[in-house]
Amino acid sequence: MKNVKIGILGFGTVGAGVVEGIINNGELLAQRTDILPSIGKIADLDIESDRGVNVDTSLLTTDALSVINDPEIDIIVELIGGVTIAKKFVLLALEAGKPVVTANKALIAEAGRELFEASAKSGAGLYFEASVAGGIPVLRALRDGLVGNQIQSMYGILNGTCNYILTRMEREGLDFDTVLADAQKLGYAETPPDLDIDGDDTAHKAVVLASLAYGAPVPMDAFTIEGIRGLSHREIEYADELGYRIKLLAVIRNVDGQVEMRVEPALVPKDHLLASVHDSFNAVFIEGDVVGDTLYYGRGAGRAPTASAVIGDIMEAAAGTGGSCKWLLQNKTLPVRGADEISVRCYLRLSLKDQPDAIADVAHVLGKNNISIGAVLQKEQNLGEQVPVVFLTHKALEKDFVAAMKEITELTVVDGKPVRMAIEDFE
Amino acid sequence: MKNVKIGILGFGTVGAGVVEGIINNGELLAQRTDILPSIGKIADLDIESDRGVNVDTSLLTTDALSVINDPEIDIIVELIGGVTIAKKFVLLALEAGKPVVTANKALIAEAGRELFEASAKSGAGLYFEASVAGGIPVLRALRDGLVGNQIQSMYGILNGTCNYILTRMEREGLDFDTVLADAQKLGYAETPPDLDIDGDDTAHKAVVLASLAYGAPVPMDAFTIEGIRGLSHREIEYADELGYRIKLLAVIRNVDGQVEMRVEPALVPKDHLLASVHDSFNAVFIEGDVVGDTLYYGRGAGRAPTASAVIGDIMEAAAGTGGSCKWLLQNKTLPVRGADEISVRCYLRLSLKDQPDAIADVAHVLGKNNISIGAVLQKEQNLGEQVPVVFLTHKALEKDFVAAMKEITELTVVDGKPVRMAIEDFE
Repeated sequence: MKNVKIGILGFGTVGAGVVEGIINNGELLAQRTDILPSIGKIADLDIESDRGVNVDTSLLTTDALSVINDPEIDIIVELIGGVTIAKKFVLLALEAGKPVVTANKALIAEAGRELFEASAKSGAGLYFEASVAGGIPVLRALRDGLVGNQIQSMYGILNGTCNYILTRMEREGLDFDTVLADAQKLGYAETPPDLDIDGDDTAHKAVVLASLAYGAPVPMDAFTIEGIRGLSHREIEYADELGYRIKLLAVIRNVDGQVEMRVEPALVPKDHLLASVHDSFNAVFIEGDVVGDTLYYGRGAGRAPTASAVIGDIMEAAAGTGGSCKWLLQNKTLPVRGADEISVRCYLRLSLKDQPDAIADVAHVLGKNNISIGAVLQKEQNLGEQVPVVFLTHKALEKDFVAAMKEITELTVVDGKPVRMAIEDFE
Repeated sequence: MKNVKIGILGFGTVGAGVVEGIINNGELLAQRTDILPSIGKIADLDIESDRGVNVDTSLLTTDALSVINDPEIDIIVELIGGVTIAKKFVLLALEAGKPVVTANKALIAEAGRELFEASAKSGAGLYFEASVAGGIPVLRALRDGLVGNQIQSMYGILNGTCNYILTRMEREGLDFDTVLADAQKLGYAETPPDLDIDGDDTAHKAVVLASLAYGAPVPMDAFTIEGIRGLSHREIEYADELGYRIKLLAVIRNVDGQVEMRVEPALVPKDHLLASVHDSFNAVFIEGDVVGDTLYYGRGAGRAPTASAVIGDIMEAAAGTGGSCKWLLQNKTLPVRGADEISVRCYLRLSLKDQPDAIADVAHVLGKNNISIGAVLQKEQNLGEQVPVVFLTHKALEKDFVAAMKEITELTVVDGKPVRMAIEDFE
């Protein structure tokens, strides 16, 4: 039996969950792995508050450096969050040759290259399963189970707050703002909610997934990012009628040797498993060239699910396996497909003046821009002069959509701002 | 860069897939892991047939022992199938200190203890990800990602043939026999189909899942096993009306310190993800005490998906990590919940004589046996004297159901054989 001592930096919700998990299931961990983990030290600025776990107060310190530098501590667990301070401590630990476990997606997404290089240099492993999709062991699946696969595509529902909002909008017929306010009241959404609802949190996680799949520290700006802020309930209703649900998706696709990366609200066919991921759950759909389609589902955040992933990483770090960052530095510059060159199907909703040539005018602009129409949905409505019309297009280039939308907005038959969203067919 | 040489026993469909995967993605594997696998030798009784992969014929031999005993061969991959011969070769390899990768669920299920002991004794790892749910890296999820979790329950759709049959029966309104015959013609079902449709294949895989979750070589007879042979299309229709789909499920649940294990066709609520697993796909739903609900989905069989899992195992064996069988021998005797003591909700379909007291007679027998009724569905039909009536019960003990069904069958108002199936609420 090997004993390992854990030093925890950041004693917040997840930190307390990790301590609790190791206390409750320590014996099981030892039986399963022949390694007994124990808490060596915990650093936090606040060492007074009660976290609801029973910790010997002598383990608590406000001095993170004393944890990193303690020769009795074998593994550092970074649960501080944010980038600046967390990065400093993680680099110090790696340079000291101590493996680091972190749940910090912003850190990996924004400072990945620097951390991977520090890890590769010192040989101390860096483990970050908990940074993507919480308790779902999806990074391990990518790294180990699917190691023999070229990754053709990944589609992720990676932000529980957005999925919770979309689920409630759909189920209860509520507005975006109403659900967001309620989610904030219930603690399911932060105040301000920007990182979640504008897609940045999803992009952070998508960067980590893409890095691992393609062996490159992917820069954030490789992604086009659109969130769900202000999404109209009308889109959810039309999508429903047309056989789709709206999900905030991270899309990562290998197309002709280039990687296409985007975060956006998209229409997902109801019979696809991702359409059945409700509430605050996360899921990642991964297509490999050998294995075909696979999917991984679970809780994407929260004290216990995140702790589950952190503990998994701790045990791997303790065994001295995994954690190598060499592969992550293979592809020095990942070939990224330019946003304009991405080919998508789209949902367009326009408010048209109720006059005979309106649809023809729009169809003409689309056609001129190499966009063909797959379906048109016009409901008989009486909104004075405006009639909402939904177009579903065939696949076309993003740059053609951009040009067409500019022209369409200027048409005299079009009122207000058109709405455009991608339709994902997972092909 | 480390070089490892693979010896393959059994050059069938999966064997050819493994060779192809290693040839096609060998460079990628080396970049990802710093290990370059290559095929050292391949043994099969038939070394003449074309498998559609380009292999140097000098690697082929009919002598499996010469592969196992070749000092140049680092890892043995067993893809022979069956138990007797496969077991002999796997034991010889383990005794020779060579790690073994196998896709053989029957072997692990039926000879697990012997193999685990041989592996634990020699220290050579035994890897069997491909034995359960094909390409889905679910055993690794259980072993590594969820290592910090007590496994509370697992529900698996583990047999692609059965799921294909059930999906087509549901979608096309066809009979069991019609779909089975068609599946056999298309190569989706074996002839004879018994191992698949009678539930044994599912039970083999469930034994492996339970062994890994609870650290014990679980005997096959710990499972009650019922397949889908002869399932009437009527059940699928009634289930649909009541909001359920029928799936052949492996159910493994930790109830009050005892493990309940069964394989049976069950009603799954349509809004549960497992109800959206269609065609020949597999999925495993795993609930851990820390992580909560998770799900893993993908292709459960076939040349490429199985090869994906075998290659993942080969790389792990090559790295010299994982593969320890010590945990699998922890629980010498797993506390198994007796079949009679299992508590389930049930769907009952009876053919009742069209007379006023019929339902009351049945309800009386159920009540007397401590079974309360949640819903009754009686459709106005005209089948002469018989009226099909469906009862959905609340939870009750299996032994009470057995007693009640015996009495119900003997009631004069009941015609024909009653149908009983479990309803899974995943609670």
